[in-house]
Amino acid sequence: MEFDLIARHFVRATPHTRLGPGDDGALLVASRGAELVVTTDMLVAGTHFFPDANPEDLGWKTLAVNLSDLAAMGAMPRWAFLAVSLPRADDAWLAAFAEGFFACAQTFAVDLAGGDVTRGPMNFCVTAIGEVPSGCALRRDGARAGNDIWISGRIGLAALGLEHRKGKLALPESLVPLCEKRLTRPQPRVQLGIALRGVATAAIDVSDGLIADLGHIARRSGLAAVLFRDRFPCLPVLDLPDAPDAALTAFLSGGDDYELCFSAPPACRAALIALATRLDLPLWRVGTLASPDISTPPGAVRLTGPDGEILPCPETSGYEHFT
Amino acid sequence: MEFDLIARHFVRATPHTRLGPGDDGALLVASRGAELVVTTDMLVAGTHFFPDANPEDLGWKTLAVNLSDLAAMGAMPRWAFLAVSLPRADDAWLAAFAEGFFACAQTFAVDLAGGDVTRGPMNFCVTAIGEVPSGCALRRDGARAGNDIWISGRIGLAALGLEHRKGKLALPESLVPLCEKRLTRPQPRVQLGIALRGVATAAIDVSDGLIADLGHIARRSGLAAVLFRDRFPCLPVLDLPDAPDAALTAFLSGGDDYELCFSAPPACRAALIALATRLDLPLWRVGTLASPDISTPPGAVRLTGPDGEILPCPETSGYEHFT
Repeated sequence: MEFDLIARHFVRATPHTRLGPGDDGALLVASRGAELVVTTDMLVAGTHFFPDANPEDLGWKTLAVNLSDLAAMGAMPRWAFLAVSLPRADDAWLAAFAEGFFACAQTFAVDLAGGDVTRGPMNFCVTAIGEVPSGCALRRDGARAGNDIWISGRIGLAALGLEHRKGKLALPESLVPLCEKRLTRPQPRVQLGIALRGVATAAIDVSDGLIADLGHIARRSGLAAVLFRDRFPCLPVLDLPDAPDAALTAFLSGGDDYELCFSAPPACRAALIALATRLDLPLWRVGTLASPDISTPPGAVRLTGPDGEILPCPETSGYEHFT
Repeated sequence: MEFDLIARHFVRATPHTRLGPGDDGALLVASRGAELVVTTDMLVAGTHFFPDANPEDLGWKTLAVNLSDLAAMGAMPRWAFLAVSLPRADDAWLAAFAEGFFACAQTFAVDLAGGDVTRGPMNFCVTAIGEVPSGCALRRDGARAGNDIWISGRIGLAALGLEHRKGKLALPESLVPLCEKRLTRPQPRVQLGIALRGVATAAIDVSDGLIADLGHIARRSGLAAVLFRDRFPCLPVLDLPDAPDAALTAFLSGGDDYELCFSAPPACRAALIALATRLDLPLWRVGTLASPDISTPPGAVRLTGPDGEILPCPETSGYEHFT
């Protein structure tokens, strides 16, 4: 009964759903001519977030990371399903979590159409469903040789915020709120993803770090990626004698930013610059995709300097999601 | 990388899916004129299953309990998504779990179209998606006063198997394998659910016990349920001096059977008897739904004897899922 009460925190109106929570399943009707995009993510205390994380932020982020996956497919988010495992019924904590979750759901007009609540170690599993017109989804495997590589917004800030929070580096006071907000309230790039239909040839969201995620596009498309160091957005100036490359490392391999990385033909450059203005979201052209060769096999990501020289890449396998 | 390897246990062909695992989301195309039914269930070690459960059985059951929810909506299962949290990468365990999971998926022609693998306490979250022709879903709220109450198969056996396994009662040798199988390899009643479209007025799967689950139909339909003790199927004869009502208690309040409980107009009796023969699955007419009154408010479930006298009902709130 205690857990029935918890479940009630998650029942709100579902105007876009034929039958919402309370039956064996939810009933949805897909729009005519749409394909459905479905993604599922599990967030575990101690692995993806600190057990003492602010519950409202955690509620927002639990949904936002799934909507980011839909955005990366060019889909319009429609429905979400939330399964929750909790060690005990803490009403105030749950109310705050639900507040953050529904703040994100309302921002993106998503119905929470169903779910499950059970007792166990803290774990949140969201399945999100979106729609995209048939054939218009942005996939990872559509990039072509000669396509530009673009990224949205500012990446690396979430990773810097995390390092700061862990006490591993000291950010300048002015950067702390910005980095904190990126970490705790990521903004899924839903409008951008939709606007990229028919423009981008491939897309992914930057959740594990630029090099790792761009590598997925390169591998699935059978290409090699080349990043131009001198085209990167201006990185924060960090006076950290012990970690002189902290900003660059965060940019290249920090996760949890949930910006989009995508490929597009050079003919689309003007359209993308106009789109950045329209969305009030910077878009940076930071590289190119090339046919693989001996030095750059399929899936490889190379960092190059102004004269085309190869620069060392930071280690990419160590990023830990932890907010 | 270790966890990438785990993920590979769960990548198999997805012939009914436009784009399966490996991208930010899966791409599905719903059948023309279909509504989608979506259900999600989280199974936690220690709450829903013994941590040392046979992994192949656990894989089967993890999917089967979700397909049972789709069956209870009259839906044809189509796609599943599996999120897994595991404390470590145990290859042999995972291979066995995947074997059981895919055995169930193949039996019901379900594509595992995506998922997530992460590190943490053992937890499995499945989201299953099915299809039902528009307007034909079996809901909990469609029962009418005067409808018969039906159940499929044999209920209570899983609960008896669980009590036996826990050492709380000693089953006759001949019953053990039957009860064990019900507990470890539940059969979602998919064909029955589909056959009940246009016949049943409401349906639910018996996962928490007959009284609890029938109570959901009664409450959502604004009716009271009356069960006829003398119409129950023959219950196993258990010579248990300490628990003379064990079989009846299991029948009324044991969970984990995943049979269907449904309501239908009396005019459908002959059709349902014929259906039982066609599916080779017994269907039992065990009660009726009535307009609520002072003694039987909406959602109430009453047990009555041959002369209409009210019999005591066993306690229903204590059922623990544990296999």
